[in-house]
Amino acid sequence: MRLATRKNGSRDGELVVVSARHDRWAPARGIVPHLQAALDRWDEVFPQLQELDRDLAEGKLGEPSDMRALGAPLPRAYEWIDASAFIQHIELVRRARGAPLPEGLESEPLMYQGGSGCLLGPYDDVALADEAWGLDFEAEIGLVLADTPRGVPASRALDHVRLILLANDWTLRELVPAELAKGFGFFVSKPATSFSPLALTPDELGEHFEDGRVHLPLRSSVNGRLVGDPDAGEMHFSFADLIAHAARTRSLTAGTLLGSGTVSNRDPSRGASCLVEQRTREFLASGKATTAYLKLGDRVRIEMLDPSGASLFGSIEQTVVAG
Amino acid sequence: MRLATRKNGSRDGELVVVSARHDRWAPARGIVPHLQAALDRWDEVFPQLQELDRDLAEGKLGEPSDMRALGAPLPRAYEWIDASAFIQHIELVRRARGAPLPEGLESEPLMYQGGSGCLLGPYDDVALADEAWGLDFEAEIGLVLADTPRGVPASRALDHVRLILLANDWTLRELVPAELAKGFGFFVSKPATSFSPLALTPDELGEHFEDGRVHLPLRSSVNGRLVGDPDAGEMHFSFADLIAHAARTRSLTAGTLLGSGTVSNRDPSRGASCLVEQRTREFLASGKATTAYLKLGDRVRIEMLDPSGASLFGSIEQTVVAG
Repeated sequence: MRLATRKNGSRDGELVVVSARHDRWAPARGIVPHLQAALDRWDEVFPQLQELDRDLAEGKLGEPSDMRALGAPLPRAYEWIDASAFIQHIELVRRARGAPLPEGLESEPLMYQGGSGCLLGPYDDVALADEAWGLDFEAEIGLVLADTPRGVPASRALDHVRLILLANDWTLRELVPAELAKGFGFFVSKPATSFSPLALTPDELGEHFEDGRVHLPLRSSVNGRLVGDPDAGEMHFSFADLIAHAARTRSLTAGTLLGSGTVSNRDPSRGASCLVEQRTREFLASGKATTAYLKLGDRVRIEMLDPSGASLFGSIEQTVVAG
Repeated sequence: MRLATRKNGSRDGELVVVSARHDRWAPARGIVPHLQAALDRWDEVFPQLQELDRDLAEGKLGEPSDMRALGAPLPRAYEWIDASAFIQHIELVRRARGAPLPEGLESEPLMYQGGSGCLLGPYDDVALADEAWGLDFEAEIGLVLADTPRGVPASRALDHVRLILLANDWTLRELVPAELAKGFGFFVSKPATSFSPLALTPDELGEHFEDGRVHLPLRSSVNGRLVGDPDAGEMHFSFADLIAHAARTRSLTAGTLLGSGTVSNRDPSRGASCLVEQRTREFLASGKATTAYLKLGDRVRIEMLDPSGASLFGSIEQTVVAG
């Protein structure tokens, strides 16, 4: 099932069930007002959404979709936890910063808590106050979790996955070094994160969601030029590992968002899911990073296609604007 | 006005307005179901809550209160942002860890994003899986914010303060050094935070809320022994500074929780608002920290009294249990 949130002027928007071709949808308002409310009482609501989805597929109901009217599936969420599960990316970014590699890189996930109260929709403009802050995108896979108990082992963690989606974890690269030097992690260097139009139940990915990893390429482009399409299956830590780490000392509430970190492959021919990785590769190859960070007017597009070429989550398409 | 959340089995609990003596309350269910809903449409709801409060004060309605039935004012919140605005505390804790002082300590606040999906109520037990993790409390002042626009200047930041409350930012001290060494800030070293029974509109503090600081002692005790009662007015950064920093690159949604960081005074005779500070003082005085971190069965109490000795926010009273 494909769930999405239509903007309707309210804080949480309105839940819609979207057809396989993304061309039609059925508002779920007769069942539940918005996605968070569905997650709050999933066992009761989910069968009703499935029935709506069946009726939509059979053409019994529904209306033409308007993807541009969609916001983030959760316009405000109770948590946004972001990992950095692609070790290749960590190695490259740290090299770019001249920072040492963290100890235990391969044994314990890096994870930070992001802001979650104001999340951006897939087509929302991204306001940038100062180009010198070095705006970069980071294309990621994300999960929406069910209630997840403290101390859940990795072996049972995937039972708590409700939905899968894409995220763009916007980063202000030039604000990162000074902030991390303070020792408390990211804060102002991470403005509001964006999410894909659609959030999918894991069954929609079929065999491509395996071992807690999404085994498909994630495509990122800037101004129509492909920056990379690395395989998201090359995660060092699986989502099971990430959930277990996130819940090690506290419970997570239904609707918690959990990100994979920037998708990255060891094979440089696959390109990158953020500009800093591309810049690092340029620097290592030629002694100079030639790709600039994003400027006003730049457009970033992130999407994931299935092997037939169909878009799974819809696309994140955002423009950088002054503000 | 004093607002609180009665546990009723739902995720958000039920909003109640509490009398000045904390001995009676009036459920707000005829107006709004819970505190987050009130914050979502404050301008509409607040006058109705004021009327309820007046009727409660005049004895026209209300019922005997049961403070032990209260949870956190926001049992789940969209953000929990915690600063470290008492520089004295940072200096002492870093000395205890053998960590260098961050650059710009006096010019830019230290701030981290905490988990906010599962918050503890004032009388909830605190589950500790391993005493070796070094459980410590951190007594703080917290705010509940209104919608706060990105880039709000400090000069206008206090317009966005809705409520003031107390927080206990539980910390697993022995997990901190390894986690901070990874460079992404706190995560598993910060289990769920606890909040006071009552959240007060700023006017209730009168002249004690001045210059974006609460100028009253914050009392912390363990097993009935006073650990400290430092003056919360000795914040280096005001809450206006903290709000401006938190909103520098993103907007904050209504219901965002913002903490002061552990209250700390330069005068050692005022004691401490956490054990690590007490341990550091012991270490500096005698070469040895004699106070242990919390053990199973230990009880922590945090409260703030007005000059007449009346409790302003009710008390946080929690017991450490196995789990």
